[in-house]
Amino acid sequence: FSTSTLQHLFKQIFKASLDLQKTETKKILLVSREKRSEDTVIDVKGEKIGDGNTHFVMGPCSVESYEQVREVALEMKNQGLQLLRGGAFKPRTSPYDFQGLGVEGLKILRQVADELDMAVVSEITSPENIEVALDYVDIIQIGARNMQNFDLLKTAGSVDRPVWLKRGLSATIEELIYAAEYIHSRGNSQIILCERGIRTYEKATRNTLDISSVPILKKETHLPVAVDVTHSTGRRDLLLPAAKAAIAIGADVVMAEVHPDPATALSDSAQQMDIAQFRDFMKGLQPLLNMNQKATV
Amino acid sequence: FSTSTLQHLFKQIFKASLDLQKTETKKILLVSREKRSEDTVIDVKGEKIGDGNTHFVMGPCSVESYEQVREVALEMKNQGLQLLRGGAFKPRTSPYDFQGLGVEGLKILRQVADELDMAVVSEITSPENIEVALDYVDIIQIGARNMQNFDLLKTAGSVDRPVWLKRGLSATIEELIYAAEYIHSRGNSQIILCERGIRTYEKATRNTLDISSVPILKKETHLPVAVDVTHSTGRRDLLLPAAKAAIAIGADVVMAEVHPDPATALSDSAQQMDIAQFRDFMKGLQPLLNMNQKATV
Amino acid sequence: FSTSTLQHLFKQIFKASLDLQKTETKKILLVSREKRSEDTVIDVKGEKIGDGNTHFVMGPCSVESYEQVREVALEMKNQGLQLLRGGAFKPRTSPYDFQGLGVEGLKILRQVADELDMAVVSEITSPENIEVALDYVDIIQIGARNMQNFDLLKTAGSVDRPVWLKRGLSATIEELIYAAEYIHSRGNSQIILCERGIRTYEKATRNTLDISSVPILKKETHLPVAVDVTHSTGRRDLLLPAAKAAIAIGADVVMAEVHPDPATALSDSAQQMDIAQFRDFMKGLQPLLNMNQKATV
Amino acid sequence: FSTSTLQHLFKQIFKASLDLQKTETKKILLVSREKRSEDTVIDVKGEKIGDGNTHFVMGPCSVESYEQVREVALEMKNQGLQLLRGGAFKPRTSPYDFQGLGVEGLKILRQVADELDMAVVSEITSPENIEVALDYVDIIQIGARNMQNFDLLKTAGSVDRPVWLKRGLSATIEELIYAAEYIHSRGNSQIILCERGIRTYEKATRNTLDISSVPILKKETHLPVAVDVTHSTGRRDLLLPAAKAAIAIGADVVMAEVHPDPATALSDSAQQMDIAQFRDFMKGLQPLLNMNQKATV
Repeated sequence: FSTSTLQHLFKQIFKASLDLQKTETKKILLVSREKRSEDTVIDVKGEKIGDGNTHFVMGPCSVESYEQVREVALEMKNQGLQLLRGGAFKPRTSPYDFQGLGVEGLKILRQVADELDMAVVSEITSPENIEVALDYVDIIQIGARNMQNFDLLKTAGSVDRPVWLKRGLSATIEELIYAAEYIHSRGNSQIILCERGIRTYEKATRNTLDISSVPILKKETHLPVAVDVTHSTGRRDLLLPAAKAAIAIGADVVMAEVHPDPATALSDSAQQMDIAQFRDFMKGLQPLLNMNQKATV
Repeated sequence: FSTSTLQHLFKQIFKASLDLQKTETKKILLVSREKRSEDTVIDVKGEKIGDGNTHFVMGPCSVESYEQVREVALEMKNQGLQLLRGGAFKPRTSPYDFQGLGVEGLKILRQVADELDMAVVSEITSPENIEVALDYVDIIQIGARNMQNFDLLKTAGSVDRPVWLKRGLSATIEELIYAAEYIHSRGNSQIILCERGIRTYEKATRNTLDISSVPILKKETHLPVAVDVTHSTGRRDLLLPAAKAAIAIGADVVMAEVHPDPATALSDSAQQMDIAQFRDFMKGLQPLLNMNQKATV
Repeated sequence: FSTSTLQHLFKQIFKASLDLQKTETKKILLVSREKRSEDTVIDVKGEKIGDGNTHFVMGPCSVESYEQVREVALEMKNQGLQLLRGGAFKPRTSPYDFQGLGVEGLKILRQVADELDMAVVSEITSPENIEVALDYVDIIQIGARNMQNFDLLKTAGSVDRPVWLKRGLSATIEELIYAAEYIHSRGNSQIILCERGIRTYEKATRNTLDISSVPILKKETHLPVAVDVTHSTGRRDLLLPAAKAAIAIGADVVMAEVHPDPATALSDSAQQMDIAQFRDFMKGLQPLLNMNQKATV
Repeated sequence: FSTSTLQHLFKQIFKASLDLQKTETKKILLVSREKRSEDTVIDVKGEKIGDGNTHFVMGPCSVESYEQVREVALEMKNQGLQLLRGGAFKPRTSPYDFQGLGVEGLKILRQVADELDMAVVSEITSPENIEVALDYVDIIQIGARNMQNFDLLKTAGSVDRPVWLKRGLSATIEELIYAAEYIHSRGNSQIILCERGIRTYEKATRNTLDISSVPILKKETHLPVAVDVTHSTGRRDLLLPAAKAAIAIGADVVMAEVHPDPATALSDSAQQMDIAQFRDFMKGLQPLLNMNQKATV
């Protein structure tokens, strides 16, 4: 070894010592597998999300009326599903688009869910509405655009209600994990992570479903992982194939939008299934669901 | 023409009639050039943003102390600059990172600005803090992560205070314009649009400065357009070249971060200039500023 | 209707007539479903790619020696697989990286394949090597970097040998289809399209596996569709989950890299499976393969 | 220090030693500033590219006829410009689009250039045409789609003719540098690097002009750097502002397309300037060019 080599070596030793110190003080995240090796299972009205079976969250994009929600909910009951979603507070690109029915929408969801013994999933967009939401929703959804609305995350972390956390439009997997940590660090450990497609150059789909994020999130965290096949593809004809991929790769929950009459929907009309398509969708997934069930038995 | 051709033609006529109707009812946006052809000029303590000259918003990433802010502010005064920025509410990826001094930080900014007759630009991250902000800041910044926090946009649109609206990490130019429309539609027309780099596959820079967005935003809207050279490049060595490009392409404002001692900064230490670099930065821009001034005289 | 409305209407009628003419002369692509509704089935030594069953293309990233290739091939035979891949001409980012054994590598592949009655898939990177390749390979691979090397596409289109066409690093699905059309339009209709991940901002995986491209390509074209789980994920721990997703969503072929001793591989050591991992990989896919087989019987 | 700390420390020392060895054997690239600190200046018929002044490469997207090329070339001479570009071999997404006049196109370019004492820049798309090109072109262009066509790079590296190397559609800056190294490592050091926009989610422009790549390439390599404002923006209305940004940030060459009658152009009709727009373009850049000239005098 020459002198310069030795000098370099000592510099490296010094640097290594510093790095070591850093590693030792590095926080192990509460949501990480390193912190907790068993899967988190979230019980929502008896449905155990994260238990190894596939669960479904279905319903219209926007709540438009009691009748509309009830029609979808009834078919869900027929299919044995009970996690009912619907948008009441709608984050829309333009201020002139339909902004949702607000609390009125939450009331409709609650009413239908109570009548049919179902659970409600709905998006809340601001910290001050979290309190209100507790009266109506069983799972608080935090949408893609709010994944790094840290005040909202902190408030959702302070209540005792499961949170459905969607990945931001161009959030990295690591950023999604840190967003979950914001919630967990405030005391709420009931978090479902939701892949919903990322923004890329490819425009054949509305977003690009990053299917690999599912096994990565399952490996890095102990939280249940969902795939929103509606927003990731934005195409009705891709809902079934995308759901198959999601189930096969290990997603705990599949989310999709259903509307009694998509053509007249006040939002996202091009990508929602109607009732008949919804039936075909569930039927198409049956072989995979059977296969998984055999595996878990 | 064959029969099928004629049939097709009539279908197209019908479709064209429908499209026509749609176009006629289409909202012309309040922020658009189509609505207002003259440039919006925003007067902040006598500095007229949008008047054709280049303005500068400078200051530390995070407010850390009175002394730290004052040292940067004093050098700004030396350079003839008066728009002082600093982060008090810091949106950070990890809940364990420094979250900013909050209102205490705003007070420091206000105190320094009052002592030196400067104006304060600072980010507000939740609707409930907008009211508080009015006591301390001259320009309310809405950050990239909150560009589609619509409750925040609406609240900022309801007060009489200029808003500095940053483009989201992967927002399209059109989405940025609609975000501005949320503010304007509530009554507040004093909006500065800020390009701050978009998220792409290229990792040589922190983000990819989408320099073309500047002339597009100037063409599509009547609002002043800023370029944040610090967050778009994330590299101290690129601040000066990026600022030159921004000025040459027609940006109304250049924003960059300055810290008395970047190495000890509580956030973004790798990309802030120190005082000496700040002087070189301003000196390096002088020929371009002179050229522009001659053009406007 | 006002006069201006009528004027607009007539303009639209004129425009519609023009569009109509354009549509009528628009070429229907040879590779499209519109042109041919049945699936193309490609027979490679008796293995019928595109017949509804899942096929596998496996082998080392680079051909390094006869022994190395043979060891992988033997295990493939054990697993009932016969499509052997290996890189002889290696397109590498740096001119100083291992560039492959060239024709020598093709000879090794051919020898092993002949001994074990298998078929050879290998990448050809320039038009002048297509002729040589005919002596050694059963499927000519055109790599991601050459997806729009139109001279290469045209030459591959002029020979009677199946072509494995990989999607470019940031090619759209439409561009991939047009690249296939270059081959087909020269007379060669035996084309397998291969999704191999696209370049996005997300760096948790080497590329982002665009799983939705599979059903889109199946719908838009009549060609078999493959998924390269190695290059799309770049992570050994994701090969099995990604392959499950690929099979579930309807891929005709799964491609993955296997190396007797990945740690010493001359290229891509971090992402190749060793022999034991390869066995686990095939075992892990068995339930899905069984399910599909039942479906096709 | 505890025992585990010491163990860790020794591991790090060992690792550091290994890294050190690696660094010492790491190749310093021929194209790097580290290898050669002075700027490479390329003399093309007396025009010294890389000398600190701004140079221009102009001409039609595709060569269509002698008259078409000559009309543009004459106006270039009027403007004092002499680097004439035109496409003869056109890489097109669809096999049914105009593929260029081939060698016939090169002959037209050469004839016009000889008559007016200008130099020819034209794209060559396959290794076997490099030899032919030597008879007609003064600068061999390697297009974005061929940036990693390594056979083409190697062949271009073996001749004594300047090479205009365009960045791939989604190539990193590092990959562009390595592509240049392929050329240099074969003996040809006359390379001009060309930023031409990268593929991102933003569709307001054809590609996203990565303006920051210019100072990075100038810093990392000793080669001249060009900006193609036509393909990066894809919009005629952005050519002038983008060129201003390119010059201000330090580009050595600006490239743009000019066509006598863009509306009838056989390719890229939406983004080429006509003769009058070309005049305005050059006039609009004059203040910046004057400023730079003063700086270099």
